[in-house]
Amino acid sequence: MTGFSGIDMATSFPNLITVDRRLTKPLYRQIYDSFRTRIVRAELRAGQPVPSSRELARELRISRLPVLNAYAQLLAEGYFESRVGAGTFVASGLGAEIRATPSGERPIAKHAAALPKYERPSWAASLGPFQVGQPDVQSFPMEIWSRLVSQYARRMRVKGLQYGEAMGLPELREAIASYLRTSRGVHCEAAQIMIVNGSQQALDLATRVLLDAGSSAWVEEPGYWLVHHALRAAGCRAVPVPVDAEGLDVAKGIRLSRKARAAFVAPSHQYPLGVTMSASRRFQLLEWAQRAGAWIIEDDYDSEYRYDSMPIAALQGLDGNARVIYIGTFSKVMFPSLRLGYIVIPPDLVERFAAMRQCIDLCPSHANQAVMTEFIREGHFARHIRRMRPVYAQRRRVLIEELQREFGDSAELAGDAAGMHLAMFLRGLRNDRKVAAKAVEHSLWLSALSASYIGNAPRQGFVLGFGNTRESQIANGVRLLKKCVASD
Amino acid sequence: MTGFSGIDMATSFPNLITVDRRLTKPLYRQIYDSFRTRIVRAELRAGQPVPSSRELARELRISRLPVLNAYAQLLAEGYFESRVGAGTFVASGLGAEIRATPSGERPIAKHAAALPKYERPSWAASLGPFQVGQPDVQSFPMEIWSRLVSQYARRMRVKGLQYGEAMGLPELREAIASYLRTSRGVHCEAAQIMIVNGSQQALDLATRVLLDAGSSAWVEEPGYWLVHHALRAAGCRAVPVPVDAEGLDVAKGIRLSRKARAAFVAPSHQYPLGVTMSASRRFQLLEWAQRAGAWIIEDDYDSEYRYDSMPIAALQGLDGNARVIYIGTFSKVMFPSLRLGYIVIPPDLVERFAAMRQCIDLCPSHANQAVMTEFIREGHFARHIRRMRPVYAQRRRVLIEELQREFGDSAELAGDAAGMHLAMFLRGLRNDRKVAAKAVEHSLWLSALSASYIGNAPRQGFVLGFGNTRESQIANGVRLLKKCVASD
Repeated sequence: MTGFSGIDMATSFPNLITVDRRLTKPLYRQIYDSFRTRIVRAELRAGQPVPSSRELARELRISRLPVLNAYAQLLAEGYFESRVGAGTFVASGLGAEIRATPSGERPIAKHAAALPKYERPSWAASLGPFQVGQPDVQSFPMEIWSRLVSQYARRMRVKGLQYGEAMGLPELREAIASYLRTSRGVHCEAAQIMIVNGSQQALDLATRVLLDAGSSAWVEEPGYWLVHHALRAAGCRAVPVPVDAEGLDVAKGIRLSRKARAAFVAPSHQYPLGVTMSASRRFQLLEWAQRAGAWIIEDDYDSEYRYDSMPIAALQGLDGNARVIYIGTFSKVMFPSLRLGYIVIPPDLVERFAAMRQCIDLCPSHANQAVMTEFIREGHFARHIRRMRPVYAQRRRVLIEELQREFGDSAELAGDAAGMHLAMFLRGLRNDRKVAAKAVEHSLWLSALSASYIGNAPRQGFVLGFGNTRESQIANGVRLLKKCVASD
Repeated sequence: MTGFSGIDMATSFPNLITVDRRLTKPLYRQIYDSFRTRIVRAELRAGQPVPSSRELARELRISRLPVLNAYAQLLAEGYFESRVGAGTFVASGLGAEIRATPSGERPIAKHAAALPKYERPSWAASLGPFQVGQPDVQSFPMEIWSRLVSQYARRMRVKGLQYGEAMGLPELREAIASYLRTSRGVHCEAAQIMIVNGSQQALDLATRVLLDAGSSAWVEEPGYWLVHHALRAAGCRAVPVPVDAEGLDVAKGIRLSRKARAAFVAPSHQYPLGVTMSASRRFQLLEWAQRAGAWIIEDDYDSEYRYDSMPIAALQGLDGNARVIYIGTFSKVMFPSLRLGYIVIPPDLVERFAAMRQCIDLCPSHANQAVMTEFIREGHFARHIRRMRPVYAQRRRVLIEELQREFGDSAELAGDAAGMHLAMFLRGLRNDRKVAAKAVEHSLWLSALSASYIGNAPRQGFVLGFGNTRESQIANGVRLLKKCVASD
């Protein structure tokens, strides 16, 4: 086996077998040594097909005889085996792999060393009820998307194969600007929009453009763990500022770190508490930023769905001083593996963002951008949001009912007015992380609230996603949740 | 017009018009104010369609009467205009745009401020002869790729819509590992392969994982400008080490900066000089790295095509101490807008690279990875390389002939044994950048050699790409080049 799911693809790759006529070593011996070395070093693997002697002779521009001699010897010594009608292969049971062994000093970057351990994400294992940040991909209009992808494939032009601009595809930037102005109250022109590979790239990029190592930045406490990571990777200090029922407590932020260089907030639907930042807090935050010369990074990752109340305009639209960097993503409305998000950049900073983006990965890939543009143009995007709103609203209603039925007064729910998750504080819960770890055995993917705090969590509980939890799974999921909690 | 290429898409986006029953202000007045404000602020644009009164009433869950009253007033005051049979629209000639005006202190990161100005890349304007780094996308087997994309679209599964792993799609990593072992002599298992968005992301990621701000790193002089940018963005110091006919001069590097933390090299086909690093230099470099505790970042961006000599194995395969980070890309063999590349990471560092990658953009997008895997599996990848080699070899031959004919002894050519570009030094040339800037007027895209130096360029000349220069364009291109040079 080549280690590659049974397909004899390796034979088609050019082989690194070389000969040199200037050497005194005979050609057949050079070929023999070349194969033997590569087999011993496990560069060629047991079961991997070997080019025919005719093919190899042609490639090396030599006569076939030395190749035949070398093959005969490799067969005789058991490095090769031939199968009737199938050709010649590297023999099985060979190849003690010689690995490079780390030795000596191997210092890595301090900020890289300081990052928390990477763990294979739960969704890579399997999906289950209550997973956070997962939209209902089952309900995604796959036939439409698939049709647009096929249409793109049929119409592919040479121009679309070339490098693109660091800012992204102009047509998609136009479409997004129009959407953000109309639906999110964002002040923007297409020239300010940069297409990124999901909102995480936007967070990282904004950090690298705006903050120096050692800079302080406000983060919401509790907050989104990958904001903390992005700051740590850049050597910045995250200052946890408490979130209450009105969102980030600006007065407390000022007391904790008046001179912070930035604030990272999710005012539409905070993660994990789900709070919507009040109007007065929004103005306080903007006022502080202007006085402190600070930036506001507004992560509007989950703002498309609101259930009882009217839509709420983005903080960016209130900003008179070009201090807000607005971030959005298609991961939650479309599907996560699309990896498409966007940043709205103050006009005078567009060029600096582009320069940094070019260093990071040049430009976004073309195909997904082009298909997304068509999806918006043909109206499917707005239609999909409209169609999903009652679906999620219903899941949310059922989830709240079930939680109230099972947990009664011991549970306090928060942040259920929007988005695809809510927060549940549970009286008497001692170790939410332990419960979450245990719940995995029941295929229940809970996010412990305490894991979202940089400091100590004042209360324990869970973030419950209902985006990818079918209505029929909810009642049983909540009962299982109760069982897990009972064993705490 | 909505600013969006004539498509009335904006009407389908949910509008941010809100009412609040608790206010004393009548509902019709709230609606009127809401529209007026959004028009004055240019959030709604001239010509943009307005929802019908019936639709809006339904959305706001109010009766239709206040909506009709508000619309009547907006029409009367000229904010709206109605077109028979087409509906109601925002009137044209309105909307003084209120822009956020930058004011106060607005410090950005020092490393971001220090990056060179971002310029719209030449290929965004048009393509022309001699552009560097552009493969011949005209010869790309578009029908096959397009068929695989359509096939992917038809078979799309829900699992493919979810978030992926930071390392990339396992099947593609297997395919790449097999390719690199067989064709490039790279020692690797699939577990060491990370899929990235092109080689630039690999350069940036490796820099962030391995180097601290203030660290020194050897770079080739002359060398690839985006390596310089990546180092600058991370606050590192690039130490230019001269390249001669054997590649990077390791002894000089040691004299310049013995304790550098890393060396960035392109040993297969150096950019811009096109040199292949000699075996003895390779061993010197590995030995220095082991003694200094340094990393080697091997950029194998352009190694698939060699013309006269045998293929040369990657430096990584010679490394016994797990100090080489190997970087490759599909941009040159496939097409640039694919944005797919890969890193081979020493096993003990895989987890740190994954942790940093997660901060940067979570994971690569799914579709391109899946289609690329099929393209390799079905043998098209190896076939395409085989098919393109004689095409590029022929262009190279014609280019060399024409250059020799036109420039004779005044031109010295280098680096033509491999890849898709060669370097030409020109005796008597005074200002290669000026000539390159001028050549754009003749749709000739020259890269001035002096622009690849961090220090002063000892000789002037050009890097000439022949990847995307058709054979029929070459003779005329060279004559134009001579004309441009003559006016220097």
